[in-house]
Amino acid sequence: MKVVAFAGGVGGAKLVDGLRYCLDPKDFSIIVNTGDDFVHFGLKICPDLDTICYTLANISNPETGWGRKEESWRVWEGIGELGGPTWFRLGDKDLATHLERTRLLSQGLSLSEITTKLCNLWGVQVKVYPMSDDPCSTIVFTKELGEIPFQEYFVKHQTKLTVESFRFNGIDSAMPAPGVLEAIFEADLIIFCPSNPWVSIDTILSVQGIRQSIIQKRIIAVSPIIAGHAVKGPAAKMFQDLGIVPSALRVADHYKELLWGFILDSADETDAAMINQWGIIPYVTRILMPDLSNRKRLAEEALQFAVSF
Amino acid sequence: MKVVAFAGGVGGAKLVDGLRYCLDPKDFSIIVNTGDDFVHFGLKICPDLDTICYTLANISNPETGWGRKEESWRVWEGIGELGGPTWFRLGDKDLATHLERTRLLSQGLSLSEITTKLCNLWGVQVKVYPMSDDPCSTIVFTKELGEIPFQEYFVKHQTKLTVESFRFNGIDSAMPAPGVLEAIFEADLIIFCPSNPWVSIDTILSVQGIRQSIIQKRIIAVSPIIAGHAVKGPAAKMFQDLGIVPSALRVADHYKELLWGFILDSADETDAAMINQWGIIPYVTRILMPDLSNRKRLAEEALQFAVSF
Repeated sequence: MKVVAFAGGVGGAKLVDGLRYCLDPKDFSIIVNTGDDFVHFGLKICPDLDTICYTLANISNPETGWGRKEESWRVWEGIGELGGPTWFRLGDKDLATHLERTRLLSQGLSLSEITTKLCNLWGVQVKVYPMSDDPCSTIVFTKELGEIPFQEYFVKHQTKLTVESFRFNGIDSAMPAPGVLEAIFEADLIIFCPSNPWVSIDTILSVQGIRQSIIQKRIIAVSPIIAGHAVKGPAAKMFQDLGIVPSALRVADHYKELLWGFILDSADETDAAMINQWGIIPYVTRILMPDLSNRKRLAEEALQFAVSF
Repeated sequence: MKVVAFAGGVGGAKLVDGLRYCLDPKDFSIIVNTGDDFVHFGLKICPDLDTICYTLANISNPETGWGRKEESWRVWEGIGELGGPTWFRLGDKDLATHLERTRLLSQGLSLSEITTKLCNLWGVQVKVYPMSDDPCSTIVFTKELGEIPFQEYFVKHQTKLTVESFRFNGIDSAMPAPGVLEAIFEADLIIFCPSNPWVSIDTILSVQGIRQSIIQKRIIAVSPIIAGHAVKGPAAKMFQDLGIVPSALRVADHYKELLWGFILDSADETDAAMINQWGIIPYVTRILMPDLSNRKRLAEEALQFAVSF
């Protein structure tokens, strides 16, 4: 079975980390959101791509879910001493990635070529694609400050602003990265990881041709919401800001047109009946992935569920 | 007495470090070569400016003469692990400077505004000017590789290539940084530091209006050559490549039209007579500055010499 996962950052990284133990590397591809990417201090920073790649390379920080393990903060402290902005924490090892990526981009390599290069270096065997090589920035319309780039909303303002809507700057001309449509074409199963529906999965779906290419596919999603709360990140807060009570049900609703199946937590079991009424097959299990064994277990369950009917 | 020093990197930093102990900060300005500046990993790097500022801020590495003291190399090691270029050593604290400068440039601040900001932060009391806010890159014509940027010649190839000539890319449109011509206008004395005549001092002299502005001034130079050798950097090697025997005499010759006085080492005393014949007043002393007391002593001697006639 060939599987393609659509992933954002920390939640996506946990599930794909589990999935890679269940699948032959040649049968597993990951398409990663790059709408969070931004230029900071002149450097191209790709938070979701790095979180996914560091996790698959076993060099991620297990405490935070993002950044590198055994990290130091010499440069970041130095920036603080110069009065520079420190709202985005830049670890020293992590900075090496941003610097080398920026250098390779300036030499004319594409983001997908650089991602492949880094993955090879790190021994990552599954194929990781940025959704697009073209810059596409998620802009958040906030009640308090108007339009701001996603990382400012997410990290600088710690999601405290009220979200009114989103815009993906550049999405109209963003083409899927080379290999993305081919991977989807060959896939037997598409998995939407437990990532933010608006600013991770929708971003990927908005790239030219991607939504159309998956319509005939078997698609399952794993809820990023458990008992009304996001495991990580601003998903639940965004629901509330948009006037929607955050729940697994509302996530399933968001993807309704696309889904074959939906995996939700035991805590949200009561949502299953309604989801089933929509023609989506619900699958209830524990979806929190606090450790590797739970990542593997959920990945296995998801794959078995997807071939069960 | 108001003094303006023209300076390159390590040699210039030593002399200006001595001079600042002899002069009221309001009477001392330094105009620094920016022809060595380059963009590396997307970051604007200004080697001479940083060497001068770090030295005046007492945060420079006393062993190397460049870079920061108590430096670490986490990012640079990380770049090496990614297979990136490590020929230009980037310390972690030093990187904070490059990152913050790059960020401020992208916000529209000029290099001179940023230099002033950093100097204020570091408690540097004398005025440090980049020669120009406009990019101007020293290009070295080499026999082996043709045209290459200065830092590649100097650091990557360790000056091992044969120099045929130089070109200052962008010099025709490079204007003096704000304050440079005013500082020169008010100066009673101009000092050419013991820096490279071709790629440090000539670069400054080539910026629009600078050479003309100093013609009527009392100018002294300190030789960067002692007994046929450069104290630091590629000056002597450049002389040889250009078919000139490196000597204090040839340095004085290079600046002949401009100089009132020339300070050379006791080891080169025999050059003094010829220099005198050219109408330049020679001053012979020990010009090596291995420590702060020698920096102060040479600075005091230079200032006394300059007012002695």
